[in-house]
Amino acid sequence: MNDSGEFAPQCPIPRSEYEHVVLAHGGGGRLTRQLVEKMILPRLGNEFLDRDHDGAVLPPQEGEMAMTTDSFVVDPIFFPGGDIGDLALNGTVNDLVSCGAEPMYISLSLILEEGLAMEDLWKIILSIERASSTAGVMVVTGDTKVVERGKGDRIFINTTGIGSVVPGLRISPRHCTPGDVVLINGSIGDHGIAILSARDGLGLEAGVKSDTLALNRMMSVVFRHRKEIHVLRDPTRGGVAGTLNEICLASGTGILLDENELPVKDGVRGACELLGLDPLYVANEGKMLVILPEAHAEEVLSIMRDHEEGMESRIIGRVTEDHPGMVRMHTAIGTTRIIDMISGEQLPRIC
Amino acid sequence: MNDSGEFAPQCPIPRSEYEHVVLAHGGGGRLTRQLVEKMILPRLGNEFLDRDHDGAVLPPQEGEMAMTTDSFVVDPIFFPGGDIGDLALNGTVNDLVSCGAEPMYISLSLILEEGLAMEDLWKIILSIERASSTAGVMVVTGDTKVVERGKGDRIFINTTGIGSVVPGLRISPRHCTPGDVVLINGSIGDHGIAILSARDGLGLEAGVKSDTLALNRMMSVVFRHRKEIHVLRDPTRGGVAGTLNEICLASGTGILLDENELPVKDGVRGACELLGLDPLYVANEGKMLVILPEAHAEEVLSIMRDHEEGMESRIIGRVTEDHPGMVRMHTAIGTTRIIDMISGEQLPRIC
Repeated sequence: MNDSGEFAPQCPIPRSEYEHVVLAHGGGGRLTRQLVEKMILPRLGNEFLDRDHDGAVLPPQEGEMAMTTDSFVVDPIFFPGGDIGDLALNGTVNDLVSCGAEPMYISLSLILEEGLAMEDLWKIILSIERASSTAGVMVVTGDTKVVERGKGDRIFINTTGIGSVVPGLRISPRHCTPGDVVLINGSIGDHGIAILSARDGLGLEAGVKSDTLALNRMMSVVFRHRKEIHVLRDPTRGGVAGTLNEICLASGTGILLDENELPVKDGVRGACELLGLDPLYVANEGKMLVILPEAHAEEVLSIMRDHEEGMESRIIGRVTEDHPGMVRMHTAIGTTRIIDMISGEQLPRIC
Repeated sequence: MNDSGEFAPQCPIPRSEYEHVVLAHGGGGRLTRQLVEKMILPRLGNEFLDRDHDGAVLPPQEGEMAMTTDSFVVDPIFFPGGDIGDLALNGTVNDLVSCGAEPMYISLSLILEEGLAMEDLWKIILSIERASSTAGVMVVTGDTKVVERGKGDRIFINTTGIGSVVPGLRISPRHCTPGDVVLINGSIGDHGIAILSARDGLGLEAGVKSDTLALNRMMSVVFRHRKEIHVLRDPTRGGVAGTLNEICLASGTGILLDENELPVKDGVRGACELLGLDPLYVANEGKMLVILPEAHAEEVLSIMRDHEEGMESRIIGRVTEDHPGMVRMHTAIGTTRIIDMISGEQLPRIC
């Protein structure tokens, strides 16, 4: 059984044959073919991926397209709430949503380290299968490379996505406008703390799970009802603070957050205090920042709250004309402080 | 001056500041921003990449699209005739051509190892700039990650490409038909031998350069004149032998090569003899196999020969009804031998 209590299908390359990935699995010969035909096509195959070609030929599409790419190097590759597989799939889906698009097609490129357990690769492929099916997207083309032991770290995944931009939506960080409000669909910092708690030697027992989740189904309903959204962005690396700082810089506006409105789970808060981290800077993988005119906020919030992934949606801040380029926060104790962009790497290899 | 004798612009992040890539360059904060703004946007920027967003919004496109992805892990990253940068760009362009498409948009995702010399990254970015300008494609979106020293190998690059399928072309390995001939645009094995000769300790002085080259301009002219092409494939990993074996398997036809017609440079032949390799299995990065009815071969050959990258174009084999699924070769000494698919990794990390 897998973590969800379902019976997981057995790895189709048995231990007696190849317990671990070898260099030849990336050589483009018979073993690459076996890997693709036994492990990948049966789980991810579709009319496009099956074509046995160097690329996919996709049907004509009306309107603008969005394209986004991300390489995932998260460490560890399995963590509470997910693994590098669903993380990669959901991450690219959410980046397409951030462009105001309906995600459609995903490419999947694997860089495997020689010696990766075949069972681990299998778990990751099953996880990609579940995530793509949940999000309603297709993996249409792929690639597999293998590097020598010590020249990679088990598995890196690139997912690149194409989506269809929803007509009428004009999303850009530059459209952030004074009078807008900032919404988020739930608690912050869960993913980053889940990764930290899964790392060896930290001795963290926060019980926090990653929030990795595709947000396209919820946002698709929002898009159908409201075209006035100015900015969308999933606050991953750099967290809410990093993302909002980028938006302020791009638009020349200020953003004022309200600490009392920031949803932070007890486990995340506790772990952050222990580690000297601020949840505002910790990565999320199932959250969306939605910036839009205040007049439309309640309608959009009520749509988001109708979805499980948006039940905790709320307004966390406002866009201001003053303090352009800066994120500030009204603190719980009544002061106002600057939420600066971090210069460095708070948590390396978080995604 | 660079290898081409041009004055190369200086690395915009001086040694005094960051001589090497550090983890924070992948953290999504200020240093990631600096890397993108100083090194990438000034060289690769365009109306799409400049938008400062998680993805690119691309204009509507008529007709079918092709999508292809490849991660490049070539070792070494600099080699005679090219580097991992132009290799990644040209490889994805050629995969789009293999789908019968005009390459348009490329995504660029970098996985850097902590400690990579900033100057090396800069050389690679300049090389990507040259290659994308030569091919006439745009890098429209990107991503940068950094992994700890010893968890990667200097730089891995994913390029994913989108192209517009040329109307009327129906390219598939399954369309390979008895009576077709197999064309190639020049000598085989150059890339693989160039990589081997660049590897430390091999003591190979073959003087062979990689053939890394984008083939879309030449093939675009072919596409305009002739829609009857059945199969296109660039023989990279696994070489001509590996690629033709896949085509025979997919189509259930046989292919009979003529050894006397196989173009192999002296340096490649010599190195292959020394190393016990067969040039038929050695990777190419600027070659295209074109399979089409014999009646159209001379016309297509004459178009290809009008281009520098196709001056050596010729017929190297024929598609047969007999021996389905098998590649065979008439040897120079008058015998016929089977050209099997290799099972493993002849040359690891060749691309």
